[in-house]
Amino acid sequence: MPEVLIRWTENPIIRTSDCKPSTAGLEVACVLNPGAFEYKGRIGLLLRVAERPLAKQGQVATCVLDEHSPGGVKPVYYRLDDPQLSRDDPRVMSYAGNPFLTTLSHLRLAWSHDGRHFEIEPEPVLRGQGLLQTFGIEDCRVQWIDDKYWLTYTAVSEAGVAVAMSSTRDWLSFEHHGVIFPPHNKDCALFPRKINGAYWALHRPSGARIGGHNIWIANSPDLCHFGDHRCLARSRDGFFDSERIGANASPIETDAGWLLLYHGADQKSRYGLGAMLLDRDQPWKVIGRTNEPILAPMADYETSGFFNQVVFSNGHIVRGDQIDVYYGAADQVICGSSARLTDILGSIVPHQ
Amino acid sequence: MPEVLIRWTENPIIRTSDCKPSTAGLEVACVLNPGAFEYKGRIGLLLRVAERPLAKQGQVATCVLDEHSPGGVKPVYYRLDDPQLSRDDPRVMSYAGNPFLTTLSHLRLAWSHDGRHFEIEPEPVLRGQGLLQTFGIEDCRVQWIDDKYWLTYTAVSEAGVAVAMSSTRDWLSFEHHGVIFPPHNKDCALFPRKINGAYWALHRPSGARIGGHNIWIANSPDLCHFGDHRCLARSRDGFFDSERIGANASPIETDAGWLLLYHGADQKSRYGLGAMLLDRDQPWKVIGRTNEPILAPMADYETSGFFNQVVFSNGHIVRGDQIDVYYGAADQVICGSSARLTDILGSIVPHQ
Repeated sequence: MPEVLIRWTENPIIRTSDCKPSTAGLEVACVLNPGAFEYKGRIGLLLRVAERPLAKQGQVATCVLDEHSPGGVKPVYYRLDDPQLSRDDPRVMSYAGNPFLTTLSHLRLAWSHDGRHFEIEPEPVLRGQGLLQTFGIEDCRVQWIDDKYWLTYTAVSEAGVAVAMSSTRDWLSFEHHGVIFPPHNKDCALFPRKINGAYWALHRPSGARIGGHNIWIANSPDLCHFGDHRCLARSRDGFFDSERIGANASPIETDAGWLLLYHGADQKSRYGLGAMLLDRDQPWKVIGRTNEPILAPMADYETSGFFNQVVFSNGHIVRGDQIDVYYGAADQVICGSSARLTDILGSIVPHQ
Repeated sequence: MPEVLIRWTENPIIRTSDCKPSTAGLEVACVLNPGAFEYKGRIGLLLRVAERPLAKQGQVATCVLDEHSPGGVKPVYYRLDDPQLSRDDPRVMSYAGNPFLTTLSHLRLAWSHDGRHFEIEPEPVLRGQGLLQTFGIEDCRVQWIDDKYWLTYTAVSEAGVAVAMSSTRDWLSFEHHGVIFPPHNKDCALFPRKINGAYWALHRPSGARIGGHNIWIANSPDLCHFGDHRCLARSRDGFFDSERIGANASPIETDAGWLLLYHGADQKSRYGLGAMLLDRDQPWKVIGRTNEPILAPMADYETSGFFNQVVFSNGHIVRGDQIDVYYGAADQVICGSSARLTDILGSIVPHQ
């Protein structure tokens, strides 16, 4: 079955060389996984920019946020031949058994009039702050609900990987609402309106020995306190999403139900995009799901990069029946793709 | 430093032989980890009863909840020499890579007039129900708040290990509030009253690669929806609680602050009890903590059993300066111990 999402010919639309480092002495290793929204007639992307110090010969370098260091960033260097250093994943390494990230991410705004050509702001709009974000903030979803934009993003620190939330009306001042889902959790997408009198969120907790990496749903009276968590959908043995799944951005309301785009990875950590349809009034019920990815890593910029074989999305723009899906490719650059919602809905296989 | 908690001479006070199986064909493997409360002049314990089918020669047996099976319990047998079977922990095994528990737990009431001699009800008061509890429910904390008892317990299923909540006024009818903390989470203890206009809970999420097993605190407008999660206290390298920590039952209000008893385990999974003191008005601030356990596995019934080297508590009764701490010993039997709150407070080392 052919993919439903059509790549843009100008991909990648944003590369690391387009993005200035936030701090002297750092390099931009990846610019990826943007949230997407509309504001005053423009398309905004909220980029994840992943940085690290320039490494010297024979060393590996990363950095963490530290209010006592110059510029708030503390570089960390290790000798490559240090036996206490373990580097089996491009994204995470550990020293003396203590894991940490290989890059430090912040969020940065980029603006466009046509949704394809972006001007990137020179400074971060949001950096990690406090003890729960010392390893940075990542992969922000943006959704307008009621009267402001709500931002849900991954907050990483020694204390774990959690979901934090902020809100803004003008992209200049922000209110911070703290951690809404404790570790280990990622991939939080808010529904754009109340359903049955409550706000709803999708999130992706991870089990320890039991449980896996599945999409859950919860509701809230105020968007800040969540309860009644239920497992919405699980990874599927033998499919492209056999190991882990997580929501893209907010579900899209259609006559058929809530259309949820999501990412799925297999045992080899190959990340593709899928879609499922949720009941419009009972969003914890899955009506159907694609059996094949609607986008899978195939282009060079998707198969090879900072972390190979990845297409990952947390931002899209919907206009009528048309959706533009922004995505991170190989965890290194930003690309775009488009489809008709009708075609995505047509690729969903109803549950028996 | 000597232990602060004094064991009762009649320990264990409840053994597996005291407890009838809930279902024909099952045996009680463990009776452990009781919640404790007072009701109409009696002491109530809410026992965790862990059962399994009697295994035939050369087999291992467990069971899961299944509404389509007779009695609601589906037995599962595996041949011990099946190469797909993995049994490296007495509590968890896996088949073909799918983990499950070696026993199925329910909650059962026991009543006493003196707090030491208990009459155990013949039937479970709460069994697992629904898809998020197919592997049972465990380790219930009980706390009276406002106008009823609130029960927080571990709910286990293929979808993971989570915290679920129910409430009751009469121990006959229950209201179920679903999962309040998604996987991987355990050891939830509620504060007995509002602080600064909000309800508060301690819980113990677990990280995947990053984060460990630490005590977090969250607040709620209604006890059912939680937010503003913060990491309260972490495991400590080189101490008895170097690998994982989790709250016992509800914190105890004292003039000095909230006294929290907790369990800590080291890298060898040896579980002891410790104590910490939290600020009375800002309960996310730790004032001090014991450096030595106030109870550690030493008695025969603590060092050897279903899972060796464990003392674990999720229930206590406080009367004036006196505390009776009920605890599971070696994950197999129930014991009691006592101390003066003054002595526990005196063992806490203030933070510098």
